[in-house]
Amino acid sequence: MENYKQFLVTLSSAGVVGVIAIIFVLRWVLYYQRGLAWDGGLAEFNWHPVLNVCGFIILQGLAIIVYRLPWSWKYSKLTMKFIHASLNLVAFIFAVVATVAVFDYHNAAKIPNMYSLHSWVGLAAVILYCLQLVLGVSLYLLPFAPMSWRAALMPVHVYSGLFIFTSVIAVALMGITEKLIFALTNPKYKDSPPEAIFVNVLGLLLVLYGGLILWIATRQSWKRPSDQTLHTLHSNGGGEDDTKVGPALSQLSDGAEGDSFGEVRRRNNKFDDQVN
Amino acid sequence: MENYKQFLVTLSSAGVVGVIAIIFVLRWVLYYQRGLAWDGGLAEFNWHPVLNVCGFIILQGLAIIVYRLPWSWKYSKLTMKFIHASLNLVAFIFAVVATVAVFDYHNAAKIPNMYSLHSWVGLAAVILYCLQLVLGVSLYLLPFAPMSWRAALMPVHVYSGLFIFTSVIAVALMGITEKLIFALTNPKYKDSPPEAIFVNVLGLLLVLYGGLILWIATRQSWKRPSDQTLHTLHSNGGGEDDTKVGPALSQLSDGAEGDSFGEVRRRNNKFDDQVN
Repeated sequence: MENYKQFLVTLSSAGVVGVIAIIFVLRWVLYYQRGLAWDGGLAEFNWHPVLNVCGFIILQGLAIIVYRLPWSWKYSKLTMKFIHASLNLVAFIFAVVATVAVFDYHNAAKIPNMYSLHSWVGLAAVILYCLQLVLGVSLYLLPFAPMSWRAALMPVHVYSGLFIFTSVIAVALMGITEKLIFALTNPKYKDSPPEAIFVNVLGLLLVLYGGLILWIATRQSWKRPSDQTLHTLHSNGGGEDDTKVGPALSQLSDGAEGDSFGEVRRRNNKFDDQVN
Repeated sequence: MENYKQFLVTLSSAGVVGVIAIIFVLRWVLYYQRGLAWDGGLAEFNWHPVLNVCGFIILQGLAIIVYRLPWSWKYSKLTMKFIHASLNLVAFIFAVVATVAVFDYHNAAKIPNMYSLHSWVGLAAVILYCLQLVLGVSLYLLPFAPMSWRAALMPVHVYSGLFIFTSVIAVALMGITEKLIFALTNPKYKDSPPEAIFVNVLGLLLVLYGGLILWIATRQSWKRPSDQTLHTLHSNGGGEDDTKVGPALSQLSDGAEGDSFGEVRRRNNKFDDQVN
């Protein structure tokens, strides 16, 4: 991998910033706000920022860059697709529960739903994320989509993923803005009490995390090499897991399946390597 | 150009969405709010959204994609760099005046400055944009930077540009959220009066504009070809402006300058073509 040291520094930074952001959102709701519960009150609302930060942002970020981790290159593309899809599925479930929490709270407190720009862009992001997940699995994980479709739609899949991820961070920034204006009354947001400063820093951390993930995801030189390249590399003694990796790459994704099913996947996987 | 029709549709959509966004922000301040003036009051504040939408978002978006317009390919790379830098400079001036307007208004109304996440990320974006402009001109417009620096920093220049542009849109969404909560009192934002719906739509238009600009800016196949490729194309009768284009590409950027100055630029321009 080119610039391996730079990759490690960027990845570690994203990891550290992500973990600090999770600590910040937890401290926000547990220390400054009324903790977590599922009671229709403010403690139920608090699941909204917690689940969205942990799942819809940090976990989605990890799902985006999972192909770029060099330690994952010994696993077949199919295995990595499963991991990519599973992480996104978990992030989606977090986002859905987070959305249910805020609707529940609004309904109990008789606050209208879906009036703010935050809610409009937020719900759009959840719906688009669901669509992205369904289309992604149908096109790239299941073996039925013709190769021409896979190739033609790959740039759209990649771009949509990054666009949704970025939008979710923008939605979180709007959410923080709303919540601090509504929750801080004495002193107010404009008086900059410690909670205001603390949660503003959480917002900055989310922007920074987004910036690091997008940097990693858009470096061409950090892409996962094609399975064929990896196979050649390992067959020539380039890897430590020579005996394990060869079969993993060349067979596990194809050979374990029935003949025609395996053949379609074999053809498609070969194509994926070219377009990804 | 590959997918020329798709390019035209995307570009036209960005143009239409951008113009509608400008109409929306003008209608917001002129019809729903107290118009425009420079009096320390709300009418002065209104320059803040108007200048930021028109300059810091729409104009910056145009500056980002200006190299991709095929009609610009008959002009030398140097000419296009001047246009790219000039558009960004105008957008920066808009952003600075927009920032002065809101500080002026806050000071007159005794509202604290710089307490919100909107103001933190917004000021950071203005400062980073200034830095980007100064570094961009120093590295790529002036002829002094060594070629190795130009090449090494080009990915950073491109990424920072897109990152700042995206951040500014996120800042605008936070600004809209804040302003609608503060400005709408009877009926409130949560009661969804016409102004709330109208300005929420403005927010969606900005997200859409950002999405279209980022799509155009990240398509590799829509990049400006190197000057050498263009020159060959036109010399072989590939263009309608054969006599005009050849000299424009090969001489205007280099030949008009003094010998040593021209030589450095010639070398650098050649390198730019390879890395851009």
